[in-house]
Amino acid sequence: MSDSQDAPHTLQVALGERSYPIHIGPGLLGDPRWLAPYLAGRQVMIVTNETVAPLYLERCRAGLPDDLEVRELVLPDGEATKTLASVERIWDALLAAGFNRRCTLIALGGGVIGDMAGFAAACYQRGVAFVQVPTTLLAQVDSSVGGKTGVNHPRGKNMVGAFWQPRAVLIDTDTLATLPPRELSAGLAEVIKYGLIRDADFLAWLDAEMGALRGLDAAALTRAIERSCALKAEIVAEDETEQGVRALLNLGHTFGHAIEAHQGYGHWLHGEAVGTGMLMAAGLSQRLGWLTESEVERVRAILEAAALPLAAPADMAVEDFLDIMRLDKKNLDSRLRLILLRAPGDACVHDETPPETLAALLAEFPRR
Amino acid sequence: MSDSQDAPHTLQVALGERSYPIHIGPGLLGDPRWLAPYLAGRQVMIVTNETVAPLYLERCRAGLPDDLEVRELVLPDGEATKTLASVERIWDALLAAGFNRRCTLIALGGGVIGDMAGFAAACYQRGVAFVQVPTTLLAQVDSSVGGKTGVNHPRGKNMVGAFWQPRAVLIDTDTLATLPPRELSAGLAEVIKYGLIRDADFLAWLDAEMGALRGLDAAALTRAIERSCALKAEIVAEDETEQGVRALLNLGHTFGHAIEAHQGYGHWLHGEAVGTGMLMAAGLSQRLGWLTESEVERVRAILEAAALPLAAPADMAVEDFLDIMRLDKKNLDSRLRLILLRAPGDACVHDETPPETLAALLAEFPRR
Repeated sequence: MSDSQDAPHTLQVALGERSYPIHIGPGLLGDPRWLAPYLAGRQVMIVTNETVAPLYLERCRAGLPDDLEVRELVLPDGEATKTLASVERIWDALLAAGFNRRCTLIALGGGVIGDMAGFAAACYQRGVAFVQVPTTLLAQVDSSVGGKTGVNHPRGKNMVGAFWQPRAVLIDTDTLATLPPRELSAGLAEVIKYGLIRDADFLAWLDAEMGALRGLDAAALTRAIERSCALKAEIVAEDETEQGVRALLNLGHTFGHAIEAHQGYGHWLHGEAVGTGMLMAAGLSQRLGWLTESEVERVRAILEAAALPLAAPADMAVEDFLDIMRLDKKNLDSRLRLILLRAPGDACVHDETPPETLAALLAEFPRR
Repeated sequence: MSDSQDAPHTLQVALGERSYPIHIGPGLLGDPRWLAPYLAGRQVMIVTNETVAPLYLERCRAGLPDDLEVRELVLPDGEATKTLASVERIWDALLAAGFNRRCTLIALGGGVIGDMAGFAAACYQRGVAFVQVPTTLLAQVDSSVGGKTGVNHPRGKNMVGAFWQPRAVLIDTDTLATLPPRELSAGLAEVIKYGLIRDADFLAWLDAEMGALRGLDAAALTRAIERSCALKAEIVAEDETEQGVRALLNLGHTFGHAIEAHQGYGHWLHGEAVGTGMLMAAGLSQRLGWLTESEVERVRAILEAAALPLAAPADMAVEDFLDIMRLDKKNLDSRLRLILLRAPGDACVHDETPPETLAALLAEFPRR
């Protein structure tokens, strides 16, 4: 491996015998050094979608050793396809190919492909190997790391799934060159989230570099990905199955999931809904006396700079939010659990939001 | 708790932080001491089937504290219902009830109910608590212990599933009083399996006590259950996810699964197919020179004494067996992995059966 500035960097997700590396850099796809070490046996299935396949499927195949039995499964694109029926298609294809429990699934695509292929791997023959090859910024900084897999249910997002860690995460930063601007913004929402949760310095850096990031500046994107993955790896290592600190990663997600579920999966991108949800969490934190108006304004400004939506859907009433939020996985018994901000860079879990304060925030938050 | 002969006995499945007890004895159902300690929160769903519900559902409910939110889901009976569609019904019911990730599932029934409710628990909101309350001999001695959960696929048995350990296994031996004779025999097949795998003394005891067992003698059944659970707990503690010794528990299962899949799930009981499969494994072991004719005859005799079928289905050709066996989860790459006997009481994993030896056994094994 060369020692150049462009050489991939490697982070480690420390989970004992389930530990794995995150490799980040340009040109990883297609280079046989990166995938081969993480294959369990000779049977490999690449799971991807109709958007990603024409761009990167051949390059991904080219990075596999020659003597394998390789199958491909190309699914439709979009959050609306993140269903159990799609995962059944993966299982059917694995069984039709006669794949056994030493096979490996490669998830080549965004968060939807990673969540579905990961869940398929978690439950095929009670668990087989899989490798995450995320091709969107959102998947690279968030969903590909940490082992959360699963599918949506009409009644709620990610309601069926498993914790199942990949053997490795391969982030080829070259893939961002083809990412549509709206997807880039959605990914930036999760990047901003890490700053808001626990890294005020990173947040300040993002403030300064937002233009470079939106302009697809490779150095800036690589630094944003590395810092995001390092923060996520740190939190996941502390709390793999979300008994404690990992819940902080859901900042903006309870509000965001409600928007996604209400609007129909796929109409809002996940990152867009999380962006608006973080602004709602900031607004609620202000109502609880934790954030100043100017701190909320700062959150609004960085989301705006990332070209994220700053208003909730016009057709979502207060009760629409509450009905879906009551089913959120973080709730315990009948209390609503929210992630809020004590300051930009300092998030906390809060179980005691007065219902009338939440209702007032939901009623008065801008609609569009 | 009384000190009488009838007081429940407790075994432990030692799996670190996933350890749990197996309580065995009469009168456990309906006694509030036994279920309450294993509930995660206030939300409880009892999953059972149409056969078991009229017999034991009320008794099970009576063993729950008063201040819970309890739901019941009664599914159809039989191996043919062990499908992903049935598990989706459980998830739908949990979501309709607004159950969160501190809920507990109680699997009240035989192996099919335990496998499905366990898999539903494994994947609901990425994993919730469950308790096994097995009501058939087969479930009590085998499927309720060890955390294998899942469903069948038209192409093979248990092809989709997860390792997910229960919080406890409650074996109320009184439930065997209502077990139909055919189900009792099916359970005895798995009991005999433990003797064949690694306990020649237990096998000899079973030989002597088969009449008492088939006559539902409570003391004999309790001893058979305890010894079986102890052997299973020991093996599972050594090898939770079947990387090694746990594979021995599949004695007779590769042949048996082929019979079940070919005949259509539910036409043969699982234990019946395993019984015939063990006789096939013994026959193959003889062809490899490991068992004598009289040892095979001894296996045949104990299976016959348990009223188990001793011949394969008339309509299953050699290729029918081989086609299904090639998909078995134990196979690695292209080699067929079988569990065979070096002696009654001493099983081993074998990857090197010559194809022509297997084909000869399959061709010459009796049909009915």
